[in-house]
Amino acid sequence: MQLSNAIGQIAQKAKKAASLLPQLSAEQKNSVLSAVAELLIEQRAEIQRENAKDLDAAKKKGLSAAMIDRLTLSDAVIASMVSGVQEVASLPDPIGSIDNLTIRPNGLQVGRMRVPLGVIAMIYESRPNVTVDAAALCFKAGNAVILRGGSEALHSNLILAAILKKALTAHAIDPNVVQVIPVTDREAVLHLLQQEEAIDLVIPRGGEGLIRFVTEHSRIPVLKHYKGVCHIYVDKDADLDKAVPIVINAKTQRPGVCNALEGLLVHRDIAAECIPRCTQQLAAMGVELRGCAESVQLDRAVTAAAPEDWGREFLDLILCIKVVAGYEEAKEYINQYGSGHTEAIITENYSLAQRFIREIDASAVVVNASTRFNDGGELGLGAEIGISTTKLHAYGPMGLKELTTRKFVVYGHGQVRG
Amino acid sequence: MQLSNAIGQIAQKAKKAASLLPQLSAEQKNSVLSAVAELLIEQRAEIQRENAKDLDAAKKKGLSAAMIDRLTLSDAVIASMVSGVQEVASLPDPIGSIDNLTIRPNGLQVGRMRVPLGVIAMIYESRPNVTVDAAALCFKAGNAVILRGGSEALHSNLILAAILKKALTAHAIDPNVVQVIPVTDREAVLHLLQQEEAIDLVIPRGGEGLIRFVTEHSRIPVLKHYKGVCHIYVDKDADLDKAVPIVINAKTQRPGVCNALEGLLVHRDIAAECIPRCTQQLAAMGVELRGCAESVQLDRAVTAAAPEDWGREFLDLILCIKVVAGYEEAKEYINQYGSGHTEAIITENYSLAQRFIREIDASAVVVNASTRFNDGGELGLGAEIGISTTKLHAYGPMGLKELTTRKFVVYGHGQVRG
Repeated sequence: MQLSNAIGQIAQKAKKAASLLPQLSAEQKNSVLSAVAELLIEQRAEIQRENAKDLDAAKKKGLSAAMIDRLTLSDAVIASMVSGVQEVASLPDPIGSIDNLTIRPNGLQVGRMRVPLGVIAMIYESRPNVTVDAAALCFKAGNAVILRGGSEALHSNLILAAILKKALTAHAIDPNVVQVIPVTDREAVLHLLQQEEAIDLVIPRGGEGLIRFVTEHSRIPVLKHYKGVCHIYVDKDADLDKAVPIVINAKTQRPGVCNALEGLLVHRDIAAECIPRCTQQLAAMGVELRGCAESVQLDRAVTAAAPEDWGREFLDLILCIKVVAGYEEAKEYINQYGSGHTEAIITENYSLAQRFIREIDASAVVVNASTRFNDGGELGLGAEIGISTTKLHAYGPMGLKELTTRKFVVYGHGQVRG
Repeated sequence: MQLSNAIGQIAQKAKKAASLLPQLSAEQKNSVLSAVAELLIEQRAEIQRENAKDLDAAKKKGLSAAMIDRLTLSDAVIASMVSGVQEVASLPDPIGSIDNLTIRPNGLQVGRMRVPLGVIAMIYESRPNVTVDAAALCFKAGNAVILRGGSEALHSNLILAAILKKALTAHAIDPNVVQVIPVTDREAVLHLLQQEEAIDLVIPRGGEGLIRFVTEHSRIPVLKHYKGVCHIYVDKDADLDKAVPIVINAKTQRPGVCNALEGLLVHRDIAAECIPRCTQQLAAMGVELRGCAESVQLDRAVTAAAPEDWGREFLDLILCIKVVAGYEEAKEYINQYGSGHTEAIITENYSLAQRFIREIDASAVVVNASTRFNDGGELGLGAEIGISTTKLHAYGPMGLKELTTRKFVVYGHGQVRG
């Protein structure tokens, strides 16, 4: 069978499976998720046996230690998958609730009912735990999911999908609610991205290259973020006892993630005090500091930044520092170099805090707190399937609700239009 | 200058103009809209002089009477543009409101603030009044707009854009908030659809061909509906005194629009009474009736439908009729032939009405009322910019709120992540 036909059939099966999901009760869905959690525990040895095949191949291919780490389904990773699935089961079911049910002048009752999107395709790279995390969230929100993970994780992904299917089948639900694409070349992705009649949403997770490839070729709506270039602007009216720990936390608490700090902007009036207080601690924690000419003067741990350092996503213990004349310059810098992910201001000035919240364009704008809080769990959404920096549908962390849509429901008693 | 550069510059100018719009107050925006309404009245003669150039060219090209009608900016059409702009001014401003402001366990205050999308591109066909309607809605929601109308309306669109720009300039607002692309070949659209760094949303309005072209080539998110194939299912428990007027209204009140009825499904138990009651009135009103074998038996005004009639969007005084065994068969038919636009049931059966609302997948599901109510004004959104049958971001009529997004706002007092 041709690849395009095979992918088309997967998409059609997903659509068919999805059509019955809106009717499942929260109890039924939670019961499936509990069964998945139990099976993950019971079948841990088999999961790890399949995972070992991927790990062997990865080592033979000479993949980096970091890649192999991400690929490994250790006891701890499996335990975190189990608790992730249990957490999703514990979240309230968004499906079926009706907002804003109001009466129109002609007596029609009009509201908006939350319903599943339908079929979601996830395209991701190495981490096989995404397979379970994403499937659990999509399913709880009433969607079928097509998973296309990285080739290096294929054995792991297939055993995890088999477990998900086993739990579905045991509850008399079409197992095609979860499907893994067993072909891992890019051509399969291309065919998948053409299935706009069957698939409602594509979520790519991975490097910028993957995401650009998906965006360029998809006829299906895509939710994505390319990168997280997050800034903190320390204003002249900042309380430095708040500013310094926030900067340290945002840069060092987990430097490899998208909401970590990449650029520090400091008001000139307080730069001489603020910058050394930050940089001394950062340098001691092993952070490499690259700055503008003024910041270089303030601490010799700071070296001159290269032009390409401004606006760069380091995802590492490296920080860019720039002295600015004030909020306007900081805003201009953020407009130029920010990625619409997370931007923070440290200030005690009420009016300026309000202006920053209103004027800065990012999925999360933060006053006097770490950029690291831009995360579904931290912001109160529960588990998240990713962070969107596109503005359509979802801007910021995407939880269960972001995997749904709302249809209009109209209750009449014979009304016709005049 | 190359076309791609020219389009790129238009997009960049729009982005720059958009960056200042989130700060405008509702008063400022409404004042601009009032000025637009006044200018449309004052400059009616000039508008009609430019429109006459388009009409002359259209007549020389031999465009159909329907096309020329849509192109004409008569006094009545101008008056309706004026009242449309005034209506948009009267709508509440969605921008800046914060939903769900809650306190996280660590004391962070987290909410979601409604903000503009940024830059919206409208790609549409002949009607020049769309230029003003769309620009008014996009502007009230805080967005810049790039308008690309049909070549046959170019003179009309340019004078209307000039009026919009004049009102903006008089209020010291960057006139690039509204731009008309003066090149009307498809290549310009192709370049426009690549400007994903500057444009946040594309809304195509027109025939299925235009919409498919845009979807296929866009790297920017697209909101659209291909077509409206709407059905009414008259259940055995229907009150025919409600059913018959609803069917008549849905089919005949305005047959050329997307929420008009195209397919009637009737429960076998009541077909012998329901179908003739509907078809006699419909036939008298000039509706051509095409049906299944059973419906042909019930009224000789009904002729046998061809296979391609099922699921067809007639946009005309033609109706398909099918007798079904019950709700399950109706649902299957709707799943197969519906376009996700509007689906209605006529029944007095409580449980079945609830099932229909829950199980049928369409942007509006209706009980005991005409499909013609799926419209922004009728459903309470105020003016609408279109109806989306894609599920992402907006499903159904799109009003002001659907031209916005929500960002997370986080108010802290020194919180760091543990």
